[in-house]
Amino acid sequence: MAAILKGIGASDGIAFAKAYRLMEPDLTVEKRGVTDAAAETERFRAALKKSESELEVIKEKARKDLGDDKAAIFEAHLLVLNDPELTGPIEDKIKSDAVNAEFALEETANMFIGMFEAMDNEYMKERAADIKDVTKRVLAALLGVDLPAPALIAEEVVVVAEDLTPSMTAQLNREFVKGFTTDIGGRTSHSAIMARSLEIPAVVGTKNATADIQNGDLVIIDGLQGEVHINPTEEVAAEYQKRAEAFAKQKAEWAKLVNEQTVTADGHHVELAANIGTPADLDGVKSNGGEGVGLYRTEFLYMGRDNLPTEEEQFESYKAVLEGMEGKPVVVRTLDIGGDKELPYLNLPHEMNPFLGFRAIRLCLEEQDIFRTQLRALLRASVYGNLKVMFPMIATVNEFRQAKAVLLEERAKLEAEGIEVAGKIELGIMVEIPSTAVIADLFAKEVDFFSIGTNDLIQYTMAADRMNERVSYLYQPYNPSILRLVKMVIEAAHKEGKWAGMCGEMAGDETAIPLLLGLGLDEFSMSATSILKARAQLKTLSKADMETLAAKAVEMSTAEEVVELVNSIEKK
Amino acid sequence: MAAILKGIGASDGIAFAKAYRLMEPDLTVEKRGVTDAAAETERFRAALKKSESELEVIKEKARKDLGDDKAAIFEAHLLVLNDPELTGPIEDKIKSDAVNAEFALEETANMFIGMFEAMDNEYMKERAADIKDVTKRVLAALLGVDLPAPALIAEEVVVVAEDLTPSMTAQLNREFVKGFTTDIGGRTSHSAIMARSLEIPAVVGTKNATADIQNGDLVIIDGLQGEVHINPTEEVAAEYQKRAEAFAKQKAEWAKLVNEQTVTADGHHVELAANIGTPADLDGVKSNGGEGVGLYRTEFLYMGRDNLPTEEEQFESYKAVLEGMEGKPVVVRTLDIGGDKELPYLNLPHEMNPFLGFRAIRLCLEEQDIFRTQLRALLRASVYGNLKVMFPMIATVNEFRQAKAVLLEERAKLEAEGIEVAGKIELGIMVEIPSTAVIADLFAKEVDFFSIGTNDLIQYTMAADRMNERVSYLYQPYNPSILRLVKMVIEAAHKEGKWAGMCGEMAGDETAIPLLLGLGLDEFSMSATSILKARAQLKTLSKADMETLAAKAVEMSTAEEVVELVNSIEKK
Repeated sequence: MAAILKGIGASDGIAFAKAYRLMEPDLTVEKRGVTDAAAETERFRAALKKSESELEVIKEKARKDLGDDKAAIFEAHLLVLNDPELTGPIEDKIKSDAVNAEFALEETANMFIGMFEAMDNEYMKERAADIKDVTKRVLAALLGVDLPAPALIAEEVVVVAEDLTPSMTAQLNREFVKGFTTDIGGRTSHSAIMARSLEIPAVVGTKNATADIQNGDLVIIDGLQGEVHINPTEEVAAEYQKRAEAFAKQKAEWAKLVNEQTVTADGHHVELAANIGTPADLDGVKSNGGEGVGLYRTEFLYMGRDNLPTEEEQFESYKAVLEGMEGKPVVVRTLDIGGDKELPYLNLPHEMNPFLGFRAIRLCLEEQDIFRTQLRALLRASVYGNLKVMFPMIATVNEFRQAKAVLLEERAKLEAEGIEVAGKIELGIMVEIPSTAVIADLFAKEVDFFSIGTNDLIQYTMAADRMNERVSYLYQPYNPSILRLVKMVIEAAHKEGKWAGMCGEMAGDETAIPLLLGLGLDEFSMSATSILKARAQLKTLSKADMETLAAKAVEMSTAEEVVELVNSIEKK
Repeated sequence: MAAILKGIGASDGIAFAKAYRLMEPDLTVEKRGVTDAAAETERFRAALKKSESELEVIKEKARKDLGDDKAAIFEAHLLVLNDPELTGPIEDKIKSDAVNAEFALEETANMFIGMFEAMDNEYMKERAADIKDVTKRVLAALLGVDLPAPALIAEEVVVVAEDLTPSMTAQLNREFVKGFTTDIGGRTSHSAIMARSLEIPAVVGTKNATADIQNGDLVIIDGLQGEVHINPTEEVAAEYQKRAEAFAKQKAEWAKLVNEQTVTADGHHVELAANIGTPADLDGVKSNGGEGVGLYRTEFLYMGRDNLPTEEEQFESYKAVLEGMEGKPVVVRTLDIGGDKELPYLNLPHEMNPFLGFRAIRLCLEEQDIFRTQLRALLRASVYGNLKVMFPMIATVNEFRQAKAVLLEERAKLEAEGIEVAGKIELGIMVEIPSTAVIADLFAKEVDFFSIGTNDLIQYTMAADRMNERVSYLYQPYNPSILRLVKMVIEAAHKEGKWAGMCGEMAGDETAIPLLLGLGLDEFSMSATSILKARAQLKTLSKADMETLAAKAVEMSTAEEVVELVNSIEKK
């Protein structure tokens, strides 16, 4: 039966395909007595064999698509699977207790998992996680149910999931995944950001996608309207065919702007830059006409591994991005770890409110070895392009002064060692904490630039966790308080002859762009895939008109009134 | 040996007494085989008896000091202790497994605790907690170690603890506890606020109090300097005797101001009000010359019980406070639950960042039954005094409008029922979220007053959890960003002819008071015990001079520079 789900359009575009549910099956185990322990042991060994061949396939796939690094985890799983210290006790238990293999497996595995997790040692904890994953796979084989294997998808599908974690997304076969929809998440959730970076349509936060969509259902993902159509009628399918064609046509129009500058209707130039996570993202920046990199998130260098990246590894990545951008500006953000981004190997203590905790520059100023290694790598790479460095989560002028002093120390050391460093490297800060926006005039005397991080700035200014569904109504980019803080930052920068950019989600948002232009923003940094659309929009806008608009907007009482105001002018 | 610990002076004054360590003893259990199970069972029964008589004493003490409500928990413990469904299996285990009573007790109790905790039912979870408490007591009896029994303290002591939870504090015998010191916590921790309300000196956050202080050590708590002296030399003790006398003398001087108005050196009047939690706190407000109640925290009505307070119960409390204040203003804050204040019976889901979560007005606007009951009780009580109502955690103008609409609906209903409600009840908001401070001018057109809640405002503005030691350096009341937000709020209020108060810890802070006077704050609401000292300070200050000071302070770059500025002027 045809049905429609409403959600949040997280990535533009329209996708048609069969549904692929990326869900955990029910692996509940019951204890049964067995009379023929030898036969049960055989059944267990067969399940091991089946799991082994599955893992071999996944490992090869991962190696090919994602590289040796990512494939290593499946190598570890294979080792667990073949470890007689695990399988021996299970077979013993089948025999001695005369119980079914599922029960013997679960009991034994849980014992090891409990033991490893109890050790206060990150390495052992990861072994516990490996055993969990492997146990799941063998259990599924024993129970005769399928585990989802996103790496093995070999036909065009729309992925349906409760939520997509970074590790699930890493396993997706990008060739065949045409779009996805999730039960939870918002525009700034990991899955949404990932969808935009993969350029596939996505609708998140539908609440009911996994409940209402079955494997094999025909699904339309309308990332423009935030709608999901399940088994649409022929009329709806035909209508969407048209819309998809129109969208493709519009994209082709936008594509013509790839080598153009971004100039408003009244001749004002702004810079449209891209947010990236790895050197591999540069292809997208170029194909979408990015005028620079406005945010290079260096966290990815530190994630999905067991130890800190070396200075050399970092240097290579920074150099690759700087060279790749061929002299265009590259703003690198120093390590922003903590909050919702954890590095298990740093063994950071659990916090009651991680978003208000020990993260980013707070951590770097205390764990200076980590910070200095990164700064050295950056300084060494600086000669390969147009590097600008910015510090995340700066809340006080003292923090900036300290971070700058550390950078200058490392520069001096390198120069003393005879290593070349670019003469002028602009030094800026993320403005993502309310205090920093409120005293931006004081900061503007000391920094070279600002980059407003709206995702965090909004969450702190409204005191509402942007990941928490129950307070999601307070994530209000258009709230006049947010617009006023943005205004303060831009005016403070200009007064001191500095520039102000924005690298939060808001910078690429259709409704926000007119306001940001009016407030005087110099640089808009966004998902590469949003750049051409934003450029097309900015070409139609007059900066002078938008200044009037913005001046009115900051005097509105509510976010709703601001949206209404923007809509009324857009439709003129 | 004499030693000194440094910490945070959380409550003024100087205390001398013997140390009483409020610590959990080591209750580790080892499994031992026993040959005489009957003797072991006797040993177990003797431990039960001992625990029973302890609990009887504690229960009576609690009933006398704290009322039947608080004593009920010990009644529940006695029931557990005498429950054959718990004790039977333990005695069986001693016999059948031939093990020691400690082991049989722990194993059996853990089984029940696990079972009850696994049920998704708040009542059963509390039963699990009861069993835990009782098991601890019987184990202590078996192991021959003492559990701390703060309710039974019968000589003058200084309490030494890692931290003091509200439930521990409730058990303290106030007659004999002369001061306390803790390892963790800051000026706004529960224990610190409690110390000020009990008017006993306290030093928190010493890191090492429990490590360095033994039971019976002679301890000096210097709440003025934030120092703890352990077994002081005679010279130090004599010096402190002098200081204690000087402080007592100063307090006697301050006491003379109890019936005076608060007027600055240049004739400007401000209002000094008190923060209270229960009607019982009114004694302290009167004896300290409070000119009103600036914050009545209504959460306490909802805490330490199994269900919501009825409209009638609330009405009686509000009426008692309004009548007790005899026409002086009483600002009641509607329910501010969530964050670090949980109500188990509401079954709220666990949140990743509770301080940025579903709390206070956010919860009240969704769970309107709770909100409406409170508003009805307040409206009915309004005829007994000078009631002002304020909503906590307001982030947007829409939230205020919604909350106000609900209040007006309840007023209309009551009036339709013929129930009298005061004609004019001022309606205000807490300003504790940055967005609200930034658009205070918009709010000022709609509210009757502001009360700035600095504890939360600082934590959100600086994006630093005020309970998190690792980022405590960012809890900066004197950061120019905070001062500017306070300035915006006060100016916005005055422009519309409204008043602005402050009910966070900052309002009673010696360094902040000159700045707040200079910024034009109308009402300072603080711990009752800080009022007389603040009045004495304000009498010496000139508002005109402080305006100059504040104007300079908001242009300083760092909190440190602001403190220096204030200190330099104070010493002139």
